[in-house]
Order: sequence, then C-alpha cells, then structure tokens
Amino acid sequence: MNTLSIYEQIQDELEAVEEKLSAIGNQSSVAEPSLLVELLGHILEAPGKRTRPAITILASKFHPNDNDLPIIMAASVELLHIATLIHDDTVDNSAVRRGKATVSTKWGENVAILLGDYVFATSATMVCDTNNVRVIRRFSETIMELSSGELSEISSAFNWNISRNTYWQRIYDKTASLFSTAAESGAVLSGAPESLVQSLKSYGYNLGMAFQIVDDILDFQGTEEEIGKPVGNDLLQGTITLPSIMLMERYPDDNPIKENFERFKESENREADGSLQRAIEMIQTSDIIPQSYAVAADLCSKATQALDSLPDSSYKHSLTTLASYVMERRY
Amino acid sequence: MNTLSIYEQIQDELEAVEEKLSAIGNQSSVAEPSLLVELLGHILEAPGKRTRPAITILASKFHPNDNDLPIIMAASVELLHIATLIHDDTVDNSAVRRGKATVSTKWGENVAILLGDYVFATSATMVCDTNNVRVIRRFSETIMELSSGELSEISSAFNWNISRNTYWQRIYDKTASLFSTAAESGAVLSGAPESLVQSLKSYGYNLGMAFQIVDDILDFQGTEEEIGKPVGNDLLQGTITLPSIMLMERYPDDNPIKENFERFKESENREADGSLQRAIEMIQTSDIIPQSYAVAADLCSKATQALDSLPDSSYKHSLTTLASYVMERRY
Repeated sequence: MNTLSIYEQIQDELEAVEEKLSAIGNQSSVAEPSLLVELLGHILEAPGKRTRPAITILASKFHPNDNDLPIIMAASVELLHIATLIHDDTVDNSAVRRGKATVSTKWGENVAILLGDYVFATSATMVCDTNNVRVIRRFSETIMELSSGELSEISSAFNWNISRNTYWQRIYDKTASLFSTAAESGAVLSGAPESLVQSLKSYGYNLGMAFQIVDDILDFQGTEEEIGKPVGNDLLQGTITLPSIMLMERYPDDNPIKENFERFKESENREADGSLQRAIEMIQTSDIIPQSYAVAADLCSKATQALDSLPDSSYKHSLTTLASYVMERRY
Repeated sequence: MNTLSIYEQIQDELEAVEEKLSAIGNQSSVAEPSLLVELLGHILEAPGKRTRPAITILASKFHPNDNDLPIIMAASVELLHIATLIHDDTVDNSAVRRGKATVSTKWGENVAILLGDYVFATSATMVCDTNNVRVIRRFSETIMELSSGELSEISSAFNWNISRNTYWQRIYDKTASLFSTAAESGAVLSGAPESLVQSLKSYGYNLGMAFQIVDDILDFQGTEEEIGKPVGNDLLQGTITLPSIMLMERYPDDNPIKENFERFKESENREADGSLQRAIEMIQTSDIIPQSYAVAADLCSKATQALDSLPDSSYKHSLTTLASYVMERRY
C-alpha cells in the first residue's frame, strides 16, 4: 500500500472536503467585497497534501457513522491549517507557499493579518456545524496552542539555551496539537467509545511530533535548490531544533552555535565568521541526523502502537502507512 | 441616572468579568512561556470602558437566571474586542491604546500578530464554557464580520466612490456586529424567549451602528491635542466615512476629496495641495456634522424603541441611558 492508496480509499470523503473548502469563497455573504473573494480563491485553490483532513476521515472509520460530521471536521481542520500558514508566512516573510505567492507578499502584511483572522474565524464557524461542544472547544484550544507555539519560537530566536522540554512543548503546540485534534475529533464525531478516541488521539499526537521532527531534520538536508531555502535555514534564523540541541549536548562548552548566538549580542554580522555554517556541517556529517531520525521513528512506532487495540481494517492499515510516509517524506 | 450608575447597578457582575479576564494570564498552561505572560498582563491590565460586557450583562437581566453564563459571555466579548484592537493597531500602525504603548509598537508586528491570534482563540475557547452552540457559532461569525469589515476598509482606502450601502455594511461588520452579538447572547443565555432576544439584538445592532457613526463624526471634531491624532485623520488615511459621503453627495462633480483621491493615482504628494484640508473644513463648517449626528440619533431612537416591548426595570433604564451616552461621548 502506498500513500496514493490511502487517499483512494477515502476519495469520496476528501472530495466532499474539497467542495466544502471551495464553497467558502462563493458564499453570498462575501459576494460584495471582491478583494475577499479574490483572496479566498487564491488560498483555497492552492493544492495541499491534505494530510490533516485525511487523518480526521480515517480516524472516523472505526465506528459506524454517516460521514457527515467527520467531513465537516476535516474541512475545518484543513481551513485552520490554511489560516495558520497565512499568518506564519507573514511572520516569517515567506515569499512562496504551495507553489503560489504568499498573501503577505502579493497583497501586503495588513491584508494577510486580516485575511488570516477571517479564515481562522471561518474555520471556527464551520466546526460549529458539528454541534458538538467538545470538539468545538478542542478546536479553539488548538488555535491557542498553535499561536502560543509560534510565539514561543519567535521569542526565543537566537537563544541557544533551549532544553529538550522546551522544544518538545513547542513542537506539540505548533504541529502535534492539530494532528492530535484532527484524529481525536474524527473519532469523537464517529460516536466511537472513549477508549478508542484516546487511542486515535495518541496516534495523532505521536504522528504530529514525528512529523515536526522530520521537518526540522529536512531543514539540514538536501540542497538550497531542492528545498527552496538555504540549508540550515532554521538555525540561520535563530531557531534551535532537535539536531541543534543534540549538537549542543555533545559540545556543551565549545560550541559554534552558542559562540555565534552569544556574540550576536554585540554584533550584527552573525554569519561572517562562518560559525553557523560550521555548526550546520557538524550536524550534517556527524550521526546527529540518523539519531534525530531515530527519535522520530520512535514516535512513529508509538503512533502505530496506539492503534494496536483497534480492530484490523484497511483504514487502520492506512494510518500505519501514513506513519511510514512521515518518516520517508523528503520535502 | 448617569453612566456611572449603569455600571454601579451591575458592579458585581462586572467585577466577576474582570476576574475572568485577569485569570487568563495566570493559567498554569501559560506559566512557562514568560513572554506570553508579560504580553497578557500588558493588554489585560489596560483599563477599558467595558461597554460591550455591560451590554451583555444588562441584556441578560430580563429573564431570571443565575448570572454565570452571561458573565462568561461578557468576558468573552471583551476579550474578543481586545483581540481585534491588537490586530487593528498593528494594521493601522497605532502607537498608543488605552493609555499604553500598543503591542506592535513595543514588541513588534510579528508578536502582535501571534498574540492577537492567541487572544482571539482564548475568547473563542472561553465562550465554549457557555455550552450553547448558538452563541458559540454567533461568536465565530462575529469574528468573521469584524475582520471582513477591517479588510473592506483597508482595501477601499483612497477610493472616493463609497456608497452609503457600502459604508453601512462596513460599520455593521466592524462595530455593530459585536454590539449586536453582545446583546443577543446575553439575552439567549438568560433563557429569555425569542421575541425578547430579538428586541435586545435589535437594540445592540442600532446602538452599535450609532456608536460607529459618532466615532466617525468625532474624527472631524476637537483638536489634535484632544483626540491624540490629526483632525480628519480617517480622511487623511483615505477612509471615507459618513461626513465625507455627505460632502460628496452635495458636490458630486466638483469635490476636493474626489479631486485629491483621483490625483493621488499620479502623485504621492497627496496633502500638498491642501484639498483634503479644504474638505475637512467644509465638513466642519457646514451642517454636515449636525446632519451626521441626526443619523446617529435616529439609530439611537431605534435602539431604545426596540426596548419598548420589554417590561420596565432599572436595567431597561440603563440600556436607554447607555444610548444617550453614545450620543454624548466626546472621545
């Protein structure tokens, strides 16, 4: 089974999700302000991998239900993801997303701020169609966690003294929170018993943590051409992730990252001495990358182990395949 | 009865609202990221007039209830208002709010974007404590309307061709929507019958429309010292409001605003020819200001008329007093 087959199996549901997303730009209530219609078209037409809605749909397949509520939830989850991308790209000054110019690049920061707010609110309104206060509340809490995670990241930029605990909390907030909510809410809305809900939530949590760690590893791999940004970009932007933490654990006293971040307090010319480039090379050429992958792999194992108590089915198989895909993805 | 007595009457409830707001910065979940705690302290300690929560509390007083749900709602409504102020100040590059430096000025735009998201989400999470999907949904719709109104305003900057209808829609979205939701949800959560809910919603709608029109009039009044920004600042920033619309209705062909906005397409030196200053003076010295006040007064009458069917009580009296206060406020 490959990743394509995961999507094939839930193709009808994912098409219904796409229809829900497309319909947002066509609401009569937004027919008047043409900029909004244009903006919604821009962000909703961009292709995405739809990983999170796929998790919601798959998580809803362990208890008989008519699909309606999980489809609403899956669309809400993807819309929330899109909203966070709009604001993250604004904060990070990113120029391109999903092959298209970012909103902040094309229309300016102010439009991006307000459009992001609009899309957040649209997702929060859509999730009310589930009529389930538990998932509605969990959804809003997830938005708190997403923004808190981003805030923690930018506020600790160029702080080398980041513990594994702090990193763990941050990647939960910025990524695993939504994966966990995607899985949990799919299960809740299928009407599944609580033990099953908790298993799927645990799957989502562990998968999300692994997903972000792999993301952080990929930042040190490939070439600038392949990944569309400088290799080691996180570190160059002052963001400490697992590979950097591992490097500092190995060289606590004499470490190029610590050296560089400390010296920056006095100088703007951070990259001139090449210490960050040296750190990136040390990470690339040591066993830090495989060690980081081992941490991610362990989380993926935990994700699939969380499914052990679930009855065997093609949907369970798909969730397991998705966990392997997270380890194998290259961009 | 003066405005002070409005607040005295519901002092216990408003104190409970303040406690709810203060508690947000002290949650154990945000104990770790110290920047977030600092930011929440900054925005929650700033004094506000608490007009919107007062409306929610007063609107809940027409049906017996234990106050708990209206207090939750009132705190959520104020929190949502605070969130919009954070993003609006960022978009408008405002330096001061409620006597304190704005978040974007003190911590930068990126922090302001993410903090605003966090506070939006916190308000949306808090409203879930009402366990009432109708008000939860209305709350998220209100966030959509607020951001859509701001978006419409910035996207039509320096467009002189704004109709009364467009203006009407925009002031509903950016202001009356939340006033209307504040009143409606207070009534819903008191358990009042639907006819009463609709009366209070209509009160909130009309009061909010009047409130924004008075705001737009005040922009043309007083001195720069009194209002803390240039007189006619909206117009100087390219925002057409009711007084400007009236000026253009009177001089459709030969109008300094139209002249200036049209010419700007070719020149950056907008203010040099003094045409906007001339427009501001024409508005100030004609009967446009009293005419605009007449429009606001008419809306305030509609607001109090909406209360006609309600039983007489000191709370009804307070809502009526609040409507007079909206007409009399000077900043």
